[in-house]
Amino acid sequence: MNEPGGAPVLIRSRDNALLKELRRLAQDSTAYRKQGRIWLEGDHLARALLARGGRAELAVFPESEWPQAQAEWGRAAPKSVVVADALFDGLSTLESPARMGLVLTLPPVPDLEPQAPTLVLDRLQDAGNVGSVLRSAAAFGFRQVLALKGTAALWSPKVLRAGMGAHFGLRLMESLEAAALDALAVPLLTTSSHQGELLGSQPLPWPCAWAFGHEGQGVSAELARRAARAVRIGQPGGEESLNVAAAAAICLHLSAMRREAGPKL
Amino acid sequence: MNEPGGAPVLIRSRDNALLKELRRLAQDSTAYRKQGRIWLEGDHLARALLARGGRAELAVFPESEWPQAQAEWGRAAPKSVVVADALFDGLSTLESPARMGLVLTLPPVPDLEPQAPTLVLDRLQDAGNVGSVLRSAAAFGFRQVLALKGTAALWSPKVLRAGMGAHFGLRLMESLEAAALDALAVPLLTTSSHQGELLGSQPLPWPCAWAFGHEGQGVSAELARRAARAVRIGQPGGEESLNVAAAAAICLHLSAMRREAGPKL
Repeated sequence: MNEPGGAPVLIRSRDNALLKELRRLAQDSTAYRKQGRIWLEGDHLARALLARGGRAELAVFPESEWPQAQAEWGRAAPKSVVVADALFDGLSTLESPARMGLVLTLPPVPDLEPQAPTLVLDRLQDAGNVGSVLRSAAAFGFRQVLALKGTAALWSPKVLRAGMGAHFGLRLMESLEAAALDALAVPLLTTSSHQGELLGSQPLPWPCAWAFGHEGQGVSAELARRAARAVRIGQPGGEESLNVAAAAAICLHLSAMRREAGPKL
Repeated sequence: MNEPGGAPVLIRSRDNALLKELRRLAQDSTAYRKQGRIWLEGDHLARALLARGGRAELAVFPESEWPQAQAEWGRAAPKSVVVADALFDGLSTLESPARMGLVLTLPPVPDLEPQAPTLVLDRLQDAGNVGSVLRSAAAFGFRQVLALKGTAALWSPKVLRAGMGAHFGLRLMESLEAAALDALAVPLLTTSSHQGELLGSQPLPWPCAWAFGHEGQGVSAELARRAARAVRIGQPGGEESLNVAAAAAICLHLSAMRREAGPKL
């Protein structure tokens, strides 16, 4: 590592202790919980972090990118390390490995805000789906996200990648029991593919909490019991069922539209 | 292979010629174009095919599933082969390999219907996004899908998996040039994250064609020039940009809602 302005340490051994920790962070989806820090891979995520005023503790570059990378990313983190290219590529689980990464401290868990527009994730499995849903939540003003136990790890590299920076504008809580939802003072809405009122046919409450469930099983019976309302998305094309992230986008967007425009939409 | 009622051939060599072809179909996303047939992995997709009246040419089972599998799937295909379990697992690129697969003839390319509600895909890269968009198209009554050159191969195992059976209810054309869109007689709508009319603020035409573009770059300039209208999805939460499959779900759903309910939605 280097001090600001100094020459960084160059890691050339795959057994280097720091490199081993980085590898675990990059490849094990829950390693961040043990290490208390997050691996952000790629310049898009890094830019999203900085745009939100975030700061990393460490910047990591492949050797061939140094020192040009220092000019671009020197202020992203107080320290940098440079890793031999083949070892850097070995960190990544992405199909096309990125050219830089940041390590940042896992943000402290925020307090639950009872009145906030909220997204509840009930055992969503697929990292791409979770990331897409976080993007939709951020876009449509649902800044509090409660992930129940069994949901994909929110700060894992794959969810971060799919979230495209949405994480940094959200208040994220995870590994919750359903009982934690008792603290919410806003109505809980669930979706179903085959029952409930038709989405769009009734006014939607604001603020509210939208819950989305497991890709195959939907929301749990326990969550369904807590719901103020169940809605279904009309699918005039037939009995196809939507991808859960697609369903979430539709519901969150309609909530936001109705809030802005009133009942005319 | 077997004749109906007969004992199937058991493949135990990884160099078996048929097994090599199956491996290519299962692992190379465009091999179906050369072979003219498709690999459908898993019982969910198989059931979706049969529910639509489709039929396979060959059913493939791991050895440990035979002969129970014959009872369940014997009518799905006129012939079956049984493959040693380790070799069957080696076919799959899924995280949890399925317990059966079907091989079917690639459907003939349908004729373009100028007046049909249509989805245009312009260089969408991610198989999960393409599959999700096909599900939304089927759910909301857009049964014609035109994929321009550079879009992920529609009949690849990963897109089939993400499509969850939607393929079998759609008329799919792929590898098209943008000029093919000249044959459409319905207005072409594109989305943009930062310009155009706000989605929901104006009536939507029906039938219409919705175009969705590359995950990073959006629709091409050539496609944008052909569009009758560009719309943007209001994102009151900030300048986040949505996942393309989420954006598509919102647009296709609103089209379908407006069609059903008229301007009150």
